[in-house]
Amino acid sequence: MKYCSNCSATVVLMIPEGDSLPRYVCSTCNIIHYQNPKMVVGCIPEWEDKILLCKRAIEPRKGWWTLPAGFMENNETLAQAAARETLEEANARVEIGDLYAVYSLPHISQVYFIFRAKLLDLDFKPGIESLEVKLVSEQEMPWEEMAFRVIHDPLKHYFKERNQGKFDLHVDVINKAQNAP
Amino acid sequence: MKYCSNCSATVVLMIPEGDSLPRYVCSTCNIIHYQNPKMVVGCIPEWEDKILLCKRAIEPRKGWWTLPAGFMENNETLAQAAARETLEEANARVEIGDLYAVYSLPHISQVYFIFRAKLLDLDFKPGIESLEVKLVSEQEMPWEEMAFRVIHDPLKHYFKERNQGKFDLHVDVINKAQNAP
Ligand SMILES: [Zn+2]
Ligand SMILES: [Zn+2]
Repeated sequence: MKYCSNCSATVVLMIPEGDSLPRYVCSTCNIIHYQNPKMVVGCIPEWEDKILLCKRAIEPRKGWWTLPAGFMENNETLAQAAARETLEEANARVEIGDLYAVYSLPHISQVYFIFRAKLLDLDFKPGIESLEVKLVSEQEMPWEEMAFRVIHDPLKHYFKERNQGKFDLHVDVINKAQNAP
Repeated sequence: MKYCSNCSATVVLMIPEGDSLPRYVCSTCNIIHYQNPKMVVGCIPEWEDKILLCKRAIEPRKGWWTLPAGFMENNETLAQAAARETLEEANARVEIGDLYAVYSLPHISQVYFIFRAKLLDLDFKPGIESLEVKLVSEQEMPWEEMAFRVIHDPLKHYFKERNQGKFDLHVDVINKAQNAP
């Protein structure tokens, strides 16, 4: 950030009075431009014993597998964001179920939210950000080709707990050193 | 948003190619300035059969009661944010426990996260954003003076479930029409 989005003057990085962290503050209109972490929301679309995966058509990790997930928009709920992303990336309709995983990624200032979901029909096809969309069983999971650890890890929990017959919420942290897939 | 924070040219509100929502796009450097919902993170600090409440020293709802909670910062985890806000608003040290409530407020593009937490000592006092900080039992709860429905409702669940001996995660939505305290 170099310029004030309110008045176009230059901003300076400084700790405002009464604050404890440096912020971008406008040199002219004095507005403080706070920067906040972003939410990434997705789901595990379930159909019988399979789940729906997407092969990424975009960088980073183009050609690797992931769940339908993306940045939450203003004026929607977490569940609406998860359903919208699934429609956009896999042209798939889902009924969003329980929240299953909440992972903080502090090094990139993101928090991931993964819901369980019921896939409502088989009329799915790749959206513009996907090369391929397919249903896979546990035996068919491409564990070595998963794009992101923040997707890989909840899915490991998911299949283990599905076999045990009980799902628990996972609240966890992935730090930089661990984030390589 | 009127000006580009990257180059100071004017921005225009338009739907970028391949997108479906209007965004602020720079008329000169073409950067798209996305706007995303914000996370508010707090906790229920527990001490024996009491919890710690804060009386707000700032608007909105100055003089009304709430839990320690505030906007999540970049480069922290959800649990770190909850502990930091509790230290800032109540000068209180807590050990953050289970995630207890996740409420989407789509009309103001916020998502609230409330953890259960263990208060570690009784050496608390009001921070700069609080007029008063005190431990209250269920019988002493100022239900009619709670600042926000998004705090009031999880606390109603909390005391009910505490009496029943089992806590469950609450994922819910508060819409505009319901948001008045
Ligand atoms: Zn300015
Ligand atoms: Zn620009």
